[in-house]
Amino acid sequence: MKVSMHALSVEVFVNALANLSWILQKAANDAAQRKFDPGVLLTARLAPDMFPLTRQVQIAADIAKNSVARLAGQEPLRFEDNETTIEQLRARIGRTIDLLKSVPASALEGSETRDVKLPAGERTLEFKGLDFLQRWAIPNVFFHITTAYNILRHNGVDLGKRDYLRAGRDA
Amino acid sequence: MKVSMHALSVEVFVNALANLSWILQKAANDAAQRKFDPGVLLTARLAPDMFPLTRQVQIAADIAKNSVARLAGQEPLRFEDNETTIEQLRARIGRTIDLLKSVPASALEGSETRDVKLPAGERTLEFKGLDFLQRWAIPNVFFHITTAYNILRHNGVDLGKRDYLRAGRDA
Repeated sequence: MKVSMHALSVEVFVNALANLSWILQKAANDAAQRKFDPGVLLTARLAPDMFPLTRQVQIAADIAKNSVARLAGQEPLRFEDNETTIEQLRARIGRTIDLLKSVPASALEGSETRDVKLPAGERTLEFKGLDFLQRWAIPNVFFHITTAYNILRHNGVDLGKRDYLRAGRDA
Repeated sequence: MKVSMHALSVEVFVNALANLSWILQKAANDAAQRKFDPGVLLTARLAPDMFPLTRQVQIAADIAKNSVARLAGQEPLRFEDNETTIEQLRARIGRTIDLLKSVPASALEGSETRDVKLPAGERTLEFKGLDFLQRWAIPNVFFHITTAYNILRHNGVDLGKRDYLRAGRDA
């Protein structure tokens, strides 16, 4: 027995995005409790030339969604980037999770050897499906989720590693 | 054809750790060029109750190493936490990569259904091998690597997403 591409993509991303949604909810709760405008967090960033929180969340969700579409050989569905509240960002994540869950394992069967071409500035990156997941999609999704978490922690939001992992939450 | 647990663990972690080593090298270069003590970066953190850079690197490497050992049903080999320079941290990563590469795919065969028990404070988390990788090991390794990257970016080190991913570096 081995592992399916579905387990390595859809399952990993759905879990990670659900945790991101939980983290954002905790940020909203923290803002309410400490009586500051949660919107302040959405424009926060760790360096002047890094993306702010809103963009980190949008990108994390989009890379998960688009990577699975590419592996399935489909054109990625586009979502508009128009969120201005934490609630809207959580809804965006929810729509992304629903879409990911709608992809059956059979749609990704054999995708480990599928050619994936990715526009990257002036170049086009070319991968086999498995390599694409290992070296591009998975590192990228976790990059943006962790950066969202780090922006919140840097701003003093009451969060811990347990919120990022939420391991054992079903136990 | 499906994907092996080896591809999902050893291959993913070796690639991510090699990129972390590259990022640290760029940080050392940047310090030399801007004429500041690179040791300053090692104690930098994003929040007072988050770990500094040195610890982020040690944890990233250890989680990769220990997770693969657990999946292989072996006692993890312990490395001492005594690094005080970027060069030593890169050597620690190098030793970890060598160890990971020494684990043959056969040692992880069938590990997707193996029981993995993980001490977590007062509790013990219990996973099946695949679930352990999807929800604990992979998110955790990328958490600490991304946080190391974010600490460096927050301190103005000349880095970009391309250094984190290094996709297409073999092209």
